[in-house]
Amino acid sequence: MREFELPSFPAAIEFVDRLAELAESENHHPDIDIRYRKVTVRWTSHDKGGITERDRKMAERTSALAGA
Amino acid sequence: MREFELPSFPAAIEFVDRLAELAESENHHPDIDIRYRKVTVRWTSHDKGGITERDRKMAERTSALAGA
Repeated sequence: MREFELPSFPAAIEFVDRLAELAESENHHPDIDIRYRKVTVRWTSHDKGGITERDRKMAERTSALAGA
Repeated sequence: MREFELPSFPAAIEFVDRLAELAESENHHPDIDIRYRKVTVRWTSHDKGGITERDRKMAERTSALAGA
């Protein structure tokens, strides 16, 4: 689970859009909570009962998308 | 607080994009939780200590955006 703080609300939504594109292309979808310009992203594999190596890699790619 | 179930994950994201546009134009931003194709939207006025008439109107407009 990681919280990203973007410079503005529109920047937060653009980040969510990029993240959604990645999620859809990988057919793996994180939980996303938007609180104004803060976005919390949680990658888990419910069917595997927790966090897998795949989730860790998606988390890394998410950080890259946020420019963080 | 209301949960909207969209037909797909991309449809859920498109709904969030429409909602974000409304939020930004009104300078009033709801809490948004995305769980695959389910989107929970919570309009509150933190500075007013709860839900106001404005929040109720925004909630109505949100339902219209979701086509629900």
